Amino acid sequence: MEDNKLQELAPTPLAPPSGGREGDSVHVFAPATVANVVCGFDVLGFAVDEPGDEVIMRVTNKPGITLSKITGDDGRLPLDPAKNTVSVSVQHYLQSVGRTDIGLDIELHKKMPIGSGLGSSSASTVAGLFAIKTLLGDNADPIKLLPFAMKGEEMACGHGHADNVAPALFGGFVLIRSYEPLDVVRLPHPKDLWCAIVFPDVDVPTREARQIIRKNIQMKDAVTQWGNIAGLVSGLFMQDIDLIGRSMKDVLVEPVRSMLIPDFYKMREMAMELGAVSFGISGSGPSVFAFTKDEATARAITQKLQQHLTGLKIGSNSYVSTINDAGPKVLG
Amino acid sequence: MEDNKLQELAPTPLAPPSGGREGDSVHVFAPATVANVVCGFDVLGFAVDEPGDEVIMRVTNKPGITLSKITGDDGRLPLDPAKNTVSVSVQHYLQSVGRTDIGLDIELHKKMPIGSGLGSSSASTVAGLFAIKTLLGDNADPIKLLPFAMKGEEMACGHGHADNVAPALFGGFVLIRSYEPLDVVRLPHPKDLWCAIVFPDVDVPTREARQIIRKNIQMKDAVTQWGNIAGLVSGLFMQDIDLIGRSMKDVLVEPVRSMLIPDFYKMREMAMELGAVSFGISGSGPSVFAFTKDEATARAITQKLQQHLTGLKIGSNSYVSTINDAGPKVLG
Repeated sequence: MEDNKLQELAPTPLAPPSGGREGDSVHVFAPATVANVVCGFDVLGFAVDEPGDEVIMRVTNKPGITLSKITGDDGRLPLDPAKNTVSVSVQHYLQSVGRTDIGLDIELHKKMPIGSGLGSSSASTVAGLFAIKTLLGDNADPIKLLPFAMKGEEMACGHGHADNVAPALFGGFVLIRSYEPLDVVRLPHPKDLWCAIVFPDVDVPTREARQIIRKNIQMKDAVTQWGNIAGLVSGLFMQDIDLIGRSMKDVLVEPVRSMLIPDFYKMREMAMELGAVSFGISGSGPSVFAFTKDEATARAITQKLQQHLTGLKIGSNSYVSTINDAGPKVLG
Repeated sequence: MEDNKLQELAPTPLAPPSGGREGDSVHVFAPATVANVVCGFDVLGFAVDEPGDEVIMRVTNKPGITLSKITGDDGRLPLDPAKNTVSVSVQHYLQSVGRTDIGLDIELHKKMPIGSGLGSSSASTVAGLFAIKTLLGDNADPIKLLPFAMKGEEMACGHGHADNVAPALFGGFVLIRSYEPLDVVRLPHPKDLWCAIVFPDVDVPTREARQIIRKNIQMKDAVTQWGNIAGLVSGLFMQDIDLIGRSMKDVLVEPVRSMLIPDFYKMREMAMELGAVSFGISGSGPSVFAFTKDEATARAITQKLQQHLTGLKIGSNSYVSTINDAGPKVLG
């Protein structure tokens, strides 16, 4: 996305926020997100309570951004502020609000696996943007931060998508109706909808996971898919968990991407037998997720799937939570 | 659709209704419907107050169905009960409920143009099914009639679709989430959403209008389309007419089918300039429709478009109504 495009997406000039004195600091958490949500490829996503990333940001006496520390990344992320998605998106924001005078030191604490399909880069970027917004006392609507977060996404995975950053930023369930112009709709959801996530520790890079998706599809499959997304959205508004479950079928993307995930269909069978409402790939994978009607079912599913992966000699992480409606939050 | 399939679609056996004495009669109206609704090809439809078709059904003393009269069809519809969609679907219903003992005489009064893209055959079929249900005192849920109505659709246009018959039968806005198994969802809508319909009197047969649609499409276009259908469904639930309008864009079907409609893009421009929320093709055309926020705007649009068509030496009909939530009704 070109910078002038970025300006279009944030058409109302951000008011120059005056906060941020030397020594001020803030500690922010931003949540992991599940994009696509099975039938909503590239347009749907939701946030969870855990995992998530944390940013500690301090105002320094020297203009410019330094990244003093990154933890939890096994040394995979760049400390060069020109190459890290957090500092790059914060820098774009500072330019937009006319506050390049400020100096910032950033610590990024990755609390979730990279390349997991859980919106790892989005969580970091949103944490950084929420931190600088908080430090400067910028009261603008969080939607104003979305174009800067998308800039970070473009850098992280070659594709300026919003289906992870938007739910990370707003919390809850989010529809990206359109990219040009950007049109984002917050969707309701049943309060008792639980999400069980399992990350099998295998490598599925986002770029490659996109490249294997077919560019040409059959109209009849597309009709099936949009019947299902319309059903899923209806189920969210109607608080009808069974309709949500019936609608979460993907005839286009899952058949291809599931090949990159160990025993995907076996894991789905296990989850459904244990009472899952639905089961699918989170984002581009390899993480998988199930919706359930209660916490106990969600925990039974993560336990069973992790045992199965252990049997395949594949390490894994798991997370259980309801949908996170808060988005990023200040920890201190 | 095979008959055994029909049984699957109506899995609960219909209770044998005992009504229908010789001489009983009923006069029923069933509404026209707008299918596809721009971005919801094959899965969305809604009913309007006018036009619609009427059926007068009388119980006779001789088992079997006769079609004694059809008006308003310019002689285009068959009086042979084995070839008319109304009698065929009623016959399937009678077989299903075990009432082939009954004798029926049917009059069909077409009050809307055939081949208009307004669900003409669906309105007739639903009127017939609602009439027999009423005569027999069958209190089953109207959804039990849907498979029989779809049987009529298959006969009328070679395709057992539900996006006209379902809204004609239930009224309101209807989503066909899935055909196998059949899963129908009633959607809410803003009360003040008005619909302006113009039927340009040119010939666009449904079969041919289906055949010109591309069988293979690009994934990126499908993503645009399902972002829009998700936006439209959200707008209906949120009573957000502007979101409804922004979402009603069709990058897949309209570009092809619009070629069969005289001055389609010119008419759209006129409608939008007069304040339409959205504009598109009704079903497979040639009828076009606009959503508006009030009756006056709807009437201004039909007047302007009809004037334009007159200038092209094309006759037309127009209809203005809110969305019909009642579905079929007994007139007497």
